[in-house]
Amino acid sequence: MAMRLPTAPPVYLQIADSIARRIRLGELAIGERLPSERELSAQLAVSRMTVRQALLTLQEQGLIECRPGVGSFVGKPRIEQPIDVLVGFFDNIAHRGYEPSSRLLSMERILAKRPVAQALHLGLGESVFHVHRLRLANGVPMALEHSYFPAQRCRGLERHNLEQCSVYAILTDECGIRLDYAEQSLQATVARPHEARLLAVPTGSPLMMLERVTYDGDGQPIEYAKDLYRGDSFRFVSRSRPPR
Amino acid sequence: MAMRLPTAPPVYLQIADSIARRIRLGELAIGERLPSERELSAQLAVSRMTVRQALLTLQEQGLIECRPGVGSFVGKPRIEQPIDVLVGFFDNIAHRGYEPSSRLLSMERILAKRPVAQALHLGLGESVFHVHRLRLANGVPMALEHSYFPAQRCRGLERHNLEQCSVYAILTDECGIRLDYAEQSLQATVARPHEARLLAVPTGSPLMMLERVTYDGDGQPIEYAKDLYRGDSFRFVSRSRPPR
Repeated sequence: MAMRLPTAPPVYLQIADSIARRIRLGELAIGERLPSERELSAQLAVSRMTVRQALLTLQEQGLIECRPGVGSFVGKPRIEQPIDVLVGFFDNIAHRGYEPSSRLLSMERILAKRPVAQALHLGLGESVFHVHRLRLANGVPMALEHSYFPAQRCRGLERHNLEQCSVYAILTDECGIRLDYAEQSLQATVARPHEARLLAVPTGSPLMMLERVTYDGDGQPIEYAKDLYRGDSFRFVSRSRPPR
Repeated sequence: MAMRLPTAPPVYLQIADSIARRIRLGELAIGERLPSERELSAQLAVSRMTVRQALLTLQEQGLIECRPGVGSFVGKPRIEQPIDVLVGFFDNIAHRGYEPSSRLLSMERILAKRPVAQALHLGLGESVFHVHRLRLANGVPMALEHSYFPAQRCRGLERHNLEQCSVYAILTDECGIRLDYAEQSLQATVARPHEARLLAVPTGSPLMMLERVTYDGDGQPIEYAKDLYRGDSFRFVSRSRPPR
């Protein structure tokens, strides 16, 4: 088959992509006003029609809001979270240009019941840490996490301030555990009343339920997590290849 | 760090996993009655308590339904669909032991509007095929698909019966296109009335919206798809590794 040079995307798309990148990196803040069509057309030396198509594209992507007669403003984009790469909430949110924070709802040492024991390959009644946190971006509730760790392997976890620290960093640096891979699953669901209250969304709003088992280098499970993400705020992304 | 042998999972879990595997492979059919606790205990030479724990585990996973005094029956498990591997609906459903089918809702040649043109790197108004299908498993509606293909690259697509054929197979075998990778994204949403009607679920039910752009070996986009999967029937799974 003959080689084929990739064709360059149309100019309006190159402009839209470059503005989108600046929004995602936080160089353009939410609510910030973009230059007018006329100003952008002059700055970029393209027609106003091309600028308009770029802005319409960004509007359709939910990245900007165009208020006729007033101007275009940086909107609230969905936060992208990779699903084929194991990255913690804190690191991902910070990387996207938001300020991450956590509220510790509870941290206790409990005896593992069936689903948790099963995920962590423990016997029923073995000791686990249960960490329940609300995760926020720029102070807005984004995800509700339940994480479970085998107490025997994760000694000392309870002594840390889990509102400030990354659990993954503690496991790596203090418990000498190397996180090797995770099995993740995503299911679409809707918010029940107590979840809706904590996430500040109406009951029945779409939520993404993420379940994860994280394994160490010996294939032993180290974390079982069941998280609920706000459906209106997240996009989970993956690069996929054909089998084999 | 010292080597550590993986500990074997408890016996009740090994039993549960082995039954779960047979359900997922379709060796045990939906609605089929499992042997009684007493029979399983004798067959497997384990205590009835161990059998009971295995059955409770399967019940919590939604794989079986236990009707007290009647017995345990194979339930309707969620269908797993990999998100880090590019596999078509038909192949995945068949692999899980269901009978896949399709209903072609429409197939037309249209002029690309902005979101489609952008995804496929086309100019506005270039020709694309728009394929709209309802996908079913064992005759039950499961997903609603909108797929777009650049008409110039995918000549002859319109001549095929797209209720019977895999579009990926046509692209590979007849158009000489090698599908190399896809960028996929998942968002949780809820069913609007016309979507709910086609998918046979109540309005407001959870749905998974999957968007995908599939590329050929030269990095040119070949497919843009926007699919809605029933939230109550699917689990999207991925194996994730730490960055770098």
